[in-house]
Amino acid sequence: MPAANPRRRRALADAAVALLADQGAHGLTHRSVERLAGLPAGTASNYFRNREALLVAAAERILELHMADMAAATTGGDDGTGAAGPSREHTERWTADELAGLLADSLWTAATTLRERYLAVVELQLAARSHPALAAVLASLLDNALAVTRELHVRMATPVSPAGVRTLVDLYSGALFTLVARPVGQLDRAAVRDLATAMVRGAVQVGG
Amino acid sequence: MPAANPRRRRALADAAVALLADQGAHGLTHRSVERLAGLPAGTASNYFRNREALLVAAAERILELHMADMAAATTGGDDGTGAAGPSREHTERWTADELAGLLADSLWTAATTLRERYLAVVELQLAARSHPALAAVLASLLDNALAVTRELHVRMATPVSPAGVRTLVDLYSGALFTLVARPVGQLDRAAVRDLATAMVRGAVQVGG
Repeated sequence: MPAANPRRRRALADAAVALLADQGAHGLTHRSVERLAGLPAGTASNYFRNREALLVAAAERILELHMADMAAATTGGDDGTGAAGPSREHTERWTADELAGLLADSLWTAATTLRERYLAVVELQLAARSHPALAAVLASLLDNALAVTRELHVRMATPVSPAGVRTLVDLYSGALFTLVARPVGQLDRAAVRDLATAMVRGAVQVGG
Repeated sequence: MPAANPRRRRALADAAVALLADQGAHGLTHRSVERLAGLPAGTASNYFRNREALLVAAAERILELHMADMAAATTGGDDGTGAAGPSREHTERWTADELAGLLADSLWTAATTLRERYLAVVELQLAARSHPALAAVLASLLDNALAVTRELHVRMATPVSPAGVRTLVDLYSGALFTLVARPVGQLDRAAVRDLATAMVRGAVQVGG
């Protein structure tokens, strides 16, 4: 059995995310991950049996970070991005426009400060075409994220129905792609706010 | 000067699109393109000076096909996909729901019959990160497509404002990514219709 050092495992997964963002799935090998994490040759294969296990670890690490940010943003906790979250005291019903503001902040942070992470998500989704095990893990992670997001909308008493949450999540993941695929210099805060407003107002009308 | 044979050039560009979709930008070389197009070694470099020129040719070819399909779908002409387009006699105002139906058909066709083409678009957008000339061409192609789309909305008298068209185009390109990143077997016609409805209803409320 390999020594299980959670910090080392996380460092390798973080290196995998950075490599995915920078070079795509082609740049991801045990050796490149060890090198970027500053760990000795041979370390990565103690934690990840093959390349697909590395891809899966990157996917799990990203989802863990994403869900933590989402939880922090909706309770007003520090989401680690320095962005001002809604007040912790926000316990009333969230309006469509408040929700749009939250999503606009989240999309903006994802496309700028956290761009590397969401570029890696795009690369993982594309890599899943030729890695069935990764595809299965991504599908199950996304199902789980959808369930958590539905609960969150109920807890926040947003005007989005459960069917609408599915549409909103699809729109959100699409918008993430549109934004990270564009050079940072071409991003426009007002356009991102328009995008988030349209997503929420549109989703509110689904299955309502 | 190389012999300019438009049919041969198009065959090479089509092969580039297929290779992008199947293998990503890493799979795209002069040799692989010639081989897939069934043309002799050395042909591709007569038409495309370097790899970036190949990427640009693929982008131009896709946009040409996409705009032709869009024009056909909005005038009821044959868009080559066998999908039933709206009637050629539709000269009245398009309602939000008619427009949503059109976009749902378009997204569905893109994610199924034409999946290869739109996977190639995603790969091109990612490849543009490390190919500034490709990034510049994509930006100018997209600006042009946005202008044409705005004219189309005016001509169709849709309820979407010019600012809303920008939002709608961003939502559409995001939805394309979300759908082509998902295995075909997991696509759901009703969910795609919900997505299109949300996109249009949301965009209608932007800058209106």
